[in-house]
Amino acid sequence: MGSDVGDPIQHGGNLAKARALFPEAPEPWIDLSTGINPHSYPHSPIPGNVFARLPEPAMLDDLKTVAANAYGAASAAHIAAGPGTQILLPIVASLIGGRKAAVLSPTYAEHARAARLAGFDVTETDELCRMEQADLAIIVNPNNPTGRMVKRDDLLALASVMRAKGGLLVVDEAFVDVSEAESLAGMVGDGGVLVLRSFGKFYGMAGLRLGFAIAQPEIVRTIETRLGPWAVSGPALHVAREALADREWQIQMRERLGTEAATLQACLHDAGIAIHGGTSLFCLVRDPRAQALYQHLGRRGIMTRRFDERPDDLRIGLPDESGWRRLEEALKSF
Amino acid sequence: MGSDVGDPIQHGGNLAKARALFPEAPEPWIDLSTGINPHSYPHSPIPGNVFARLPEPAMLDDLKTVAANAYGAASAAHIAAGPGTQILLPIVASLIGGRKAAVLSPTYAEHARAARLAGFDVTETDELCRMEQADLAIIVNPNNPTGRMVKRDDLLALASVMRAKGGLLVVDEAFVDVSEAESLAGMVGDGGVLVLRSFGKFYGMAGLRLGFAIAQPEIVRTIETRLGPWAVSGPALHVAREALADREWQIQMRERLGTEAATLQACLHDAGIAIHGGTSLFCLVRDPRAQALYQHLGRRGIMTRRFDERPDDLRIGLPDESGWRRLEEALKSF
Repeated sequence: MGSDVGDPIQHGGNLAKARALFPEAPEPWIDLSTGINPHSYPHSPIPGNVFARLPEPAMLDDLKTVAANAYGAASAAHIAAGPGTQILLPIVASLIGGRKAAVLSPTYAEHARAARLAGFDVTETDELCRMEQADLAIIVNPNNPTGRMVKRDDLLALASVMRAKGGLLVVDEAFVDVSEAESLAGMVGDGGVLVLRSFGKFYGMAGLRLGFAIAQPEIVRTIETRLGPWAVSGPALHVAREALADREWQIQMRERLGTEAATLQACLHDAGIAIHGGTSLFCLVRDPRAQALYQHLGRRGIMTRRFDERPDDLRIGLPDESGWRRLEEALKSF
Repeated sequence: MGSDVGDPIQHGGNLAKARALFPEAPEPWIDLSTGINPHSYPHSPIPGNVFARLPEPAMLDDLKTVAANAYGAASAAHIAAGPGTQILLPIVASLIGGRKAAVLSPTYAEHARAARLAGFDVTETDELCRMEQADLAIIVNPNNPTGRMVKRDDLLALASVMRAKGGLLVVDEAFVDVSEAESLAGMVGDGGVLVLRSFGKFYGMAGLRLGFAIAQPEIVRTIETRLGPWAVSGPALHVAREALADREWQIQMRERLGTEAATLQACLHDAGIAIHGGTSLFCLVRDPRAQALYQHLGRRGIMTRRFDERPDDLRIGLPDESGWRRLEEALKSF
């Protein structure tokens, strides 16, 4: 195991830390440090029963059916649901044997940690061709934070290499809902590939904790055996069954987020800040002035996400309605 | 691995199944098939932000502090919080090496399954003295469904045996909140013992999914490394921080449940049904007429919990206010 398996990784979304760093900043803070949709899904009220009772097995079956439709999976039997994608990572990494894991990098750091936890030697590489040598290949697509997209044909070719040697390609599609990338959710039937989908990001419901693994039914059953009963909370079942079935909201939201992401890019461009990539839920700045921008925004109560290991990078999410004016003014004064 | 690792275990709380078995039963069903408090904690409204945002690390720290106080643990560093005790079981079972696990039985069946999943040969025994031979010893205290209580001194002696050989005693105190049994939560500091606490049962909030492992800080860190960030949902953090700090509600509820459990026992006694044991959250019938009673209640829309392997047993939980009259009438007509 690498030395960093037990050390907590820093993530966005930590307002207490932002307040400690910028004690003079005006309240309320605008948290742009995560890539979560600021326009949460307008779900119906959650009945008290949903909090009180153990989640009904029939509700989970419903959720899996709705999720299979929404994500384009072959059937509900291809879907495992858990309390957040994060908690699925060590379970997924332990699905196969083998010694070598490769993570297309830079990316969400928890993937490498989970693979090390499962006993793999982990290579972090930015070269797709090097992924083939691994037993466990992990690709976030589109990538967080760079927005890099790997072509579907390249993914399928890699999946086929993995399948042939009993390995596994994990494609984390946490941000695919808002992208032009095609999901692989419908292509897992032959094995060798597993797709992760996150509920909280696109639906703006990260506090609910809900994520999915999409894979061959045998793999799904193994994951569910690990999770045991009642892995998904009642509130998550209630909200997600509505949201995943609401095509109209999904279409309109995709368009809205696309427009807002373009506005964010334009604001950054006008401020002379170089943009490296992103998705409709966040923009990745790569600029020598990234740290100065982090400080400038922080002093104005706007939290963004910096990366210790890449000082020129800054990830900036979308504000809600009330945050735009403050963000625009802060960028103009930079 | 035993052959039953992958087969789902039947549990209470499945209303769809009850409806299929008793299609003529009157609605609404009264679900007495679980041991969950029907009087849910009256928490304050949950702000939208709590659903939308990733749960703040500071909120989890708060929860751990409040939980340590409520459970009598030495400090927040002795507490790991997860999305339900259930999902912690395979993680806990994989904390130690060794080949042999023993589960004090009959009890909650998921413990044996989780130990098998972690690679243990599992012995299910009703003799406490046989637990010492195991590397992993699991005791539900007070026990579900029998209500059997193991004395604190016996548990501590067993913990000391486990500690000496690098084994682990797991004490699942899911129902201790309402019992006379003394919790071991404050006694984990020397190692060899880990305590599980369930939030949903006593607080009537099983849909939230929240459970705790209480152990030495090193063990807690290992569990947290497995869970990763954001393991507990925003709604669970919101509700549990209030509920675990509310001593007045806890005291009144313990008394209320004691009174209601006595009423349930009296009703069963008046109907000539033999009671084997229980806690303030459920009563275990052990009677040759148990299956007949299950059918009688089921036809009247009252679901109880039977056990395939012990046909004389029937577990009956407490109804809410509106259910008492129907339950009393159903028992009178038996």
